Amino acid sequence: MCSSCDSNTFKEINHKPADYKPITENIQHNQIKTNPYGPNPADFLSNVSNFQLIESTLREGEQFANAFFSTETKIQIAKALDDFGVDYIELTSPVASEQSRKDCEAICKLGLKAKILTHIRCHMDDAKVAVETGVDGVDVVIGTSQFLRKYSHGKDMNYIAQNAIEVINFVKSKGIEIRFSSEDSFRSDLVDLLNIYRTVDKIGVNRVGIADTVGCANPRQVYELVRTLNSVVNCDIECHFHNDTGCAIANAYTALEAGAKLIDASVLGIGERNGITPLGGLMARMIAADRDYVLSKYKVHKIRDIENLVAEAVQVNIPFNNPITGFCAFTHKAGIHAKAILANPSTYEILSPSDFGLTRYIHFANRLTGWNAIKSRVDQLNLHLTDEQCKEVTNKIKKIGDVRQLNIDDVDSIIKEFHSDL
Amino acid sequence: MCSSCDSNTFKEINHKPADYKPITENIQHNQIKTNPYGPNPADFLSNVSNFQLIESTLREGEQFANAFFSTETKIQIAKALDDFGVDYIELTSPVASEQSRKDCEAICKLGLKAKILTHIRCHMDDAKVAVETGVDGVDVVIGTSQFLRKYSHGKDMNYIAQNAIEVINFVKSKGIEIRFSSEDSFRSDLVDLLNIYRTVDKIGVNRVGIADTVGCANPRQVYELVRTLNSVVNCDIECHFHNDTGCAIANAYTALEAGAKLIDASVLGIGERNGITPLGGLMARMIAADRDYVLSKYKVHKIRDIENLVAEAVQVNIPFNNPITGFCAFTHKAGIHAKAILANPSTYEILSPSDFGLTRYIHFANRLTGWNAIKSRVDQLNLHLTDEQCKEVTNKIKKIGDVRQLNIDDVDSIIKEFHSDL
Repeated sequence: MCSSCDSNTFKEINHKPADYKPITENIQHNQIKTNPYGPNPADFLSNVSNFQLIESTLREGEQFANAFFSTETKIQIAKALDDFGVDYIELTSPVASEQSRKDCEAICKLGLKAKILTHIRCHMDDAKVAVETGVDGVDVVIGTSQFLRKYSHGKDMNYIAQNAIEVINFVKSKGIEIRFSSEDSFRSDLVDLLNIYRTVDKIGVNRVGIADTVGCANPRQVYELVRTLNSVVNCDIECHFHNDTGCAIANAYTALEAGAKLIDASVLGIGERNGITPLGGLMARMIAADRDYVLSKYKVHKIRDIENLVAEAVQVNIPFNNPITGFCAFTHKAGIHAKAILANPSTYEILSPSDFGLTRYIHFANRLTGWNAIKSRVDQLNLHLTDEQCKEVTNKIKKIGDVRQLNIDDVDSIIKEFHSDL
Repeated sequence: MCSSCDSNTFKEINHKPADYKPITENIQHNQIKTNPYGPNPADFLSNVSNFQLIESTLREGEQFANAFFSTETKIQIAKALDDFGVDYIELTSPVASEQSRKDCEAICKLGLKAKILTHIRCHMDDAKVAVETGVDGVDVVIGTSQFLRKYSHGKDMNYIAQNAIEVINFVKSKGIEIRFSSEDSFRSDLVDLLNIYRTVDKIGVNRVGIADTVGCANPRQVYELVRTLNSVVNCDIECHFHNDTGCAIANAYTALEAGAKLIDASVLGIGERNGITPLGGLMARMIAADRDYVLSKYKVHKIRDIENLVAEAVQVNIPFNNPITGFCAFTHKAGIHAKAILANPSTYEILSPSDFGLTRYIHFANRLTGWNAIKSRVDQLNLHLTDEQCKEVTNKIKKIGDVRQLNIDDVDSIIKEFHSDL
């Protein structure tokens, strides 16, 4: 690390009151970064151990095809997320419908620890309604890609900038947080993007947002864009990734590596189309990277309950292959896997099921089983067989497993029969 | 590109018969790559437009908790994958059970276009059985991490190397393909790994494999390891990624960027625990990157049928948020999304549903709807309303949508009633 200036310190400096005079105040940030003998940018930028969550089940999630949240359900979800420890809860725009506005006000009055945000178009009509709801901050978004500028709002970058300045100054005047995000950032012109971000950063937004609205981005693109943006703005960077091509978790992680600070997530990833970065999957990724940080901030053992709550509200099943809570996420089957897991779970587990209030299962009732798994079962049954005998009964089990699907009772019967025949 | 040597050409050279004398034969590959004035390594290495698939539903997939494939089902799946266009089909080890061996032989006799592989431990006992099954190649694997060396096979790197050399030479002597893979590569000592890979490369394996057996790797790690390995070996590189932390698709893509050539996938990602890179999700990712290449090689419009076939065989539901085939992957709901999609689908779709034989759906029966979506519905109903009238009826729909979940019939009734009242 460079001792005179690191990225996080520099950012803090910019948020300090005016009378705070750090010795580094005259150092130009960009100049330091381009020093080829300076610290490795990868380590210099990373927020992997210092990230925050913007939980958007009640905004992006409401755009999921099946979602219709009653006020009661919204409050239940908001409380569960707050208890889990999310840093921000984002709500549907109060101008979407009359009830959306009322629900926003109701959730603001709950007195949650999490800060409450609402998400609006970059337009004064929306902003005026939003600031009256009692939210702690407003997330403003506008499409900047050629596609969206042509087919959505039809405005040019100058118009976008003028509108943004007006809305941002208005929201700031109310003393609440403001984020400015582009939409479809990865298909927007890079110079346009950097220009508008620098403009809003100078006015003093709390965060700028990058959004992969169509789910097209890949991790190395994300790294490049976030790193570049990080050299242009002093405010925090928030990222929002759709999952159309299955990269939403990896992109979020890589964004943090490049210096983004906040990640948008929703329970089970629900959102437009097949959704965004899922909260549970992101927790799996982040625990693998920095377990202490994640466990110190978030109640990850509640993830299953929260997923069940939301799954029921939107009437979907937990995907069989869901990280952490998929029914077989901690099930080990092949013989060599089972053998090693029995000796030391870390051999085949990067996540510990107990962190999530879950348990491990060794699947030994099948033809891929190995004698170590069967020996373990023999011990559980309080029977005594030599290793050679365990190998013999394993072969019997494999033979029957070739013919039909086995369950635990089948295997136990085979073992007990074998034992009594001795 | 360097005109005298590029990565792919050089690789082909090494697979040419001995009498082939290219003019570049004396050029040391590593020396060229380290030339700082050479081509950008990123572009130089990428196989994103030149990748192959090793489909492992019938090997890794059989390790999925629910999997029990009869011979008939295995043949049905193999034929479907072959028709889809996968380059390789990987099968369970013939030593797993007697029926596994017979099934392997049966699939080899089908005369499929795809090459048939079987997957064995790095052991002569297994290799001797494998080469007699009629397979086109053998995939050998051995654990190289400290964890696996201690708790699985208990062997040191010298023993691993000696065993590998014996097995590789034996398989090569039979005239079939051979791949050597480490297991748990991302928790293995880098020098150990590079040493063993260089050793087996010199003997002349067709491929070396990197396996993220525990699902811990992240994209930038993958890029670094594959790129490094690419500078050490001349053979092709195959990658295998578990999905415990939700990065299996992104890691596969990044591995291709770094010069890996082959990716292991399974239908719906089924495998140990929550599985590996899913075939469908990987297709989504690759189509976003190079649609022409993917469509020229793979029948992606069959992906839904193949997923249904396997989902039924292992008794799971297609995850609601599955890329491409999740029930709402092409459903657009929020007002501003629907508006732009109606004007030009590319605004919010990076994938075209028609490539997969699927259709787009604009979800207009909800409180987030916008007047553009309603106007489109009015047109579909052959009614005539002005824009102002559409906005008015949209407000009515939003009001009712605030109270309860709406379906299409509800909205159509509201529109028709509004129209007849005019």
